[in-house]
Amino acid sequence: MTRAPGTNTKRAVVLLSGGLDSATCLAIARDEGFETFGISFSYGQRHAAELQAAGRVAEALGARQHVIVPIGLGAIARSALTDRLEVPKHTNLAEIGGEIPPTYVPARNTVFLSLALAWAETLETGDLFIGVNARDYSGYPDCRPQFIAAYQRMANLAIKAAVEGTRPVRIHTPLIELSKAEIIRRGLQLGVDYSLTRSCYDPGPGDVACGGCDACQLRRRGFAENGLADPIAYQT
Amino acid sequence: MTRAPGTNTKRAVVLLSGGLDSATCLAIARDEGFETFGISFSYGQRHAAELQAAGRVAEALGARQHVIVPIGLGAIARSALTDRLEVPKHTNLAEIGGEIPPTYVPARNTVFLSLALAWAETLETGDLFIGVNARDYSGYPDCRPQFIAAYQRMANLAIKAAVEGTRPVRIHTPLIELSKAEIIRRGLQLGVDYSLTRSCYDPGPGDVACGGCDACQLRRRGFAENGLADPIAYQT
Repeated sequence: MTRAPGTNTKRAVVLLSGGLDSATCLAIARDEGFETFGISFSYGQRHAAELQAAGRVAEALGARQHVIVPIGLGAIARSALTDRLEVPKHTNLAEIGGEIPPTYVPARNTVFLSLALAWAETLETGDLFIGVNARDYSGYPDCRPQFIAAYQRMANLAIKAAVEGTRPVRIHTPLIELSKAEIIRRGLQLGVDYSLTRSCYDPGPGDVACGGCDACQLRRRGFAENGLADPIAYQT
Repeated sequence: MTRAPGTNTKRAVVLLSGGLDSATCLAIARDEGFETFGISFSYGQRHAAELQAAGRVAEALGARQHVIVPIGLGAIARSALTDRLEVPKHTNLAEIGGEIPPTYVPARNTVFLSLALAWAETLETGDLFIGVNARDYSGYPDCRPQFIAAYQRMANLAIKAAVEGTRPVRIHTPLIELSKAEIIRRGLQLGVDYSLTRSCYDPGPGDVACGGCDACQLRRRGFAENGLADPIAYQT
């Protein structure tokens, strides 16, 4: 149900990481008739190139606004994504998802959704979109449907308009049951330019994707299963 | 059950605003045998003096560590506490709590608890203390017991150790049913020096409390009901 520009009145806050999933999520929110507001977070991650990617994605997909919220998460959280630890390179995709990996950032989606919720309240909307995926994922507990359901219930008790009954909070997770190949297919139908996105946990010089981390492997397999070449470059 | 120094092994993250309630909450956590870790937030609030107060309180009450986490909440949230709006001065205490006031910061406790949760995970504890109060409060929905219960349930689905069953999240709210007078009495029993705390929403030159905002009025009444003088200075 693509709508003509200018007729959108519903607003939605969309979490943007600069990656493939959140770009697809933004395209879906737009396709559902929402005027979109992208939010990204600067928390000391090594792969700051993802924030630039998020901005490009927001612009290309017609977001009304894109904000980057700085948070001092680095001071209180440790993981392979913010510390100088080794990012694991699985040689077998079957190893991915079996246990929670060291790339885990404590309470990440809890923190990100909370800041998105604050902005949503300011924008006078209850609609949030997050591109979590419980199928081709890396074992993060805060990507599962039961987490999202509990988050939504909590948010409806936290927010003035929700408590007053005028504007309930709804956490949209349109990708949660899709495979990576299905996500890519859906995004291409909606005109997502995946060359603008970044997924790698451990990019090299010039921000070229490593090709070996979980995120790179899942992404490459998703394109391959569609019989397509990934439009981004890889080191290996 | 005050324990001797050095025998504390349980850790707790305690949210510290610099105010009277969170100082009392920290003293209670210590009294319950926790090694305490204070967390405060710098989010563009006008009354930055509260952060200095939080640091003094943490030191005086023997917190193992105190961190101030910067968050760019000002960019996405609007309220009388961060914008240049008029802070309401009620002339009648009965007016307080009847409706949600313009000093409301969107999703504030949701955001603050989420960052405290991230730190708790890093510190390998599931215990968080927050000095919310559902009795002498200003009508914030995220101070109510049903919000805290829903938050705890969500957190237990978000965090690796909780999901694995090794370290459940528990949100302690020791003040939630107490009156301001009871909070002050309990804190004095535990040796809290309230001259170190700041409660005012709208301090004047030299960070002197205004005496007229909701927070000042509730605080003064709490001391008066104990037959005590508040040790801080007021403009009026």
